[in-house]
Amino acid sequence: MRKPIKVEEAIERVMNESMEGEREYVSLEESYGRVLAEDMKATTDVPWFDRSPYDGYAIFAEATQNASTNSPVLLEVVGTVGAGSVWEEPLKPNQAVKIMTGAAIPDGANAVIMVELTKEVVKDGKAYVQIKRKVSKGENISRIGEDMLKGSLLVEKGTVINPGVVAILATFGYHRVPVMKKPKVVIIATGSELLNVYEPLEKGKIRNSNSYMLQTQILRAGGEPVVFGKVKDTFQETYEAVTKAMEEANIIVTTGGVSVGDFDFLPKVYEKLGAKLLFNKVAMRPGSVTSAAVLDQKMLFGLSGNPSACYVGFELFVRPYLKAMLGQKNCYLKKVQAVLKKDFTKANPFTRFVRAKLSYDDGMLQVEPIGKDKSNIVSSLIEANSLIVLPGGTRGFQEGTKVDVLLLEDEQGARNWQ
Amino acid sequence: MRKPIKVEEAIERVMNESMEGEREYVSLEESYGRVLAEDMKATTDVPWFDRSPYDGYAIFAEATQNASTNSPVLLEVVGTVGAGSVWEEPLKPNQAVKIMTGAAIPDGANAVIMVELTKEVVKDGKAYVQIKRKVSKGENISRIGEDMLKGSLLVEKGTVINPGVVAILATFGYHRVPVMKKPKVVIIATGSELLNVYEPLEKGKIRNSNSYMLQTQILRAGGEPVVFGKVKDTFQETYEAVTKAMEEANIIVTTGGVSVGDFDFLPKVYEKLGAKLLFNKVAMRPGSVTSAAVLDQKMLFGLSGNPSACYVGFELFVRPYLKAMLGQKNCYLKKVQAVLKKDFTKANPFTRFVRAKLSYDDGMLQVEPIGKDKSNIVSSLIEANSLIVLPGGTRGFQEGTKVDVLLLEDEQGARNWQ
Repeated sequence: MRKPIKVEEAIERVMNESMEGEREYVSLEESYGRVLAEDMKATTDVPWFDRSPYDGYAIFAEATQNASTNSPVLLEVVGTVGAGSVWEEPLKPNQAVKIMTGAAIPDGANAVIMVELTKEVVKDGKAYVQIKRKVSKGENISRIGEDMLKGSLLVEKGTVINPGVVAILATFGYHRVPVMKKPKVVIIATGSELLNVYEPLEKGKIRNSNSYMLQTQILRAGGEPVVFGKVKDTFQETYEAVTKAMEEANIIVTTGGVSVGDFDFLPKVYEKLGAKLLFNKVAMRPGSVTSAAVLDQKMLFGLSGNPSACYVGFELFVRPYLKAMLGQKNCYLKKVQAVLKKDFTKANPFTRFVRAKLSYDDGMLQVEPIGKDKSNIVSSLIEANSLIVLPGGTRGFQEGTKVDVLLLEDEQGARNWQ
Repeated sequence: MRKPIKVEEAIERVMNESMEGEREYVSLEESYGRVLAEDMKATTDVPWFDRSPYDGYAIFAEATQNASTNSPVLLEVVGTVGAGSVWEEPLKPNQAVKIMTGAAIPDGANAVIMVELTKEVVKDGKAYVQIKRKVSKGENISRIGEDMLKGSLLVEKGTVINPGVVAILATFGYHRVPVMKKPKVVIIATGSELLNVYEPLEKGKIRNSNSYMLQTQILRAGGEPVVFGKVKDTFQETYEAVTKAMEEANIIVTTGGVSVGDFDFLPKVYEKLGAKLLFNKVAMRPGSVTSAAVLDQKMLFGLSGNPSACYVGFELFVRPYLKAMLGQKNCYLKKVQAVLKKDFTKANPFTRFVRAKLSYDDGMLQVEPIGKDKSNIVSSLIEANSLIVLPGGTRGFQEGTKVDVLLLEDEQGARNWQ
């Protein structure tokens, strides 16, 4: 009845519907982890005044023309200029001003000699600096625009704001930062077996863990989760929840309700809403009963109710759509190659995504499937930092084989799925 | 005057003063990224009732004893049990109950046959399931405690909460989660040359970018930044700011005021406060004028005012102290080996930390120094995801050499500095 399509094809159908979201301003303090909505440019030259890169003395280079170890030159120290203050009087050739790192070069001076190369001496109650070498014109002066010219591109649109970006934005006076609005992702967990996390257990029921897991996956991807809570496995409840979600969501994620069981109403809900179905089965494990549909520029994802399948379905399909809405160039999980540390003996009729732990050894990437054994279900959820991709139509893989691995916690991402 | 100590020695002196911080409870929704303050244990067996792992029919295995393709068995389908509901009447041997994935096994039934292996037939107005093979006792039943026993360790204290951890905590009903309080880190930027980010430029002055950068580094490390803003380069202002910070901070980070310039008052401030100085110079570049002192179980870090040195000083010294306060086992930056993609020709009298970009190629780690050229200052701040460590006493390094690299964005961290 349902025809599975390839993972690549499913991702492509989703991404063909993707579009950039809205923008807003936040304060620089609140900008960490957000995505820049504009190219940011230098508002001034850097440095924007000639300045000293060291603690030393600002001098006329010409005054040291004949200085040597045997015949040092003495220049009168007429004052000190600290970072942040400005020396007002023009300097005379036989004078020096003690200058601190970062301070503006006094008018007239055309070089700085580092403090380590000098000696301060006092003669007739006056302070002098003793210089034993010739200093060249322009030496140790950081010139206006030397590091950067006004108008230069600082950081590209689509960049995730990290400590380095924040430092740059502060330097150029951006106290309000244009960022992409976090896409609103409504989570609807369907299943009459679900209990809220604070409810006591009842026979036949389990607590709704997918909503909480998805909430955290949405936060990690840069979205704003909106939890609608659980709905019963009935057409009417599911239909009403999805209709309500359409009012505020950019993306709607349902879990459960997509398999072939008698109580799975989601396909009928899509139909009644008039949503355009993109797919309702994918040739992958886990999560073959993943579906996607689009309606009024909102994407509806139907993920499996099985926690593993729900997790993988989010990372493969929802995450790149959400990242594209955020204007990020690297929407996809980064794919690397790594050496398998343990045999993986299952056959793979469909493409299989195995939760795994990636590690490094002597410059090589290694990867180990986790939670293969039932008793390890917990650790497989907790320790996974990657997904091994085993192509469909393959048999088991031996220890030592090189395999493709998708990184779950990497912040760089990848521009393409392949 | 100041005696530089080795980086390893400096880190050790800081970590000898480290101690675990306080704990608090947050809701499960707010727990993402926080650090668990307790070992979390299973509150029930999993599954906690016998349940069906598939859509199928719950039956008496014995009734299929002689079933085969040629002589199929017909069992009367007396009803359907969905996930979340319970079948009340005990099943009889010639009966079957249609059962959905996750639903509780009806009393009396001792096996489940997958729906794909059956056919439903109607005879005399009654529904029957046709079974063509022998089903074994216990087949397709997930037993109580099969996945996990009550009281088993789920997640260790000190674990950073990720989507997988959240799923586990939800499954076991933890809607309030014990986490470590975020250490309060007061940031004091000293320097009369500093302007607030929203102030117009004045000659000789620059905007205070270190405060914003540190704020973001503190957030990334799991702390709570408290910005005191900038203070002038005077003993009195610095002393007063640090004294006030002592009232609320767990950690105090100052930037600037630590070099040998005439306006650097921090050493005198430590002395007057009666703080125990751990070091005031480290054999490293950048950031040799980094200092640390301890007073009343609060750590005072004096980082350089130079942005690169400030950045590196935070990651090397402040981050592990903060992580230890959070009870994390892996306090240190993860160190890996990677192949140098470009020559690095500078000599390294002291241990040098070079901001770099780590990448992967065909299972191998590669690393490239960034921002070597002055014009690249900006990209070096933005694109750095790692620090190359070049030991002191070495000359330049050639492309192709294997070098140590510290990962800045890795969430796993390392247990030891080495």
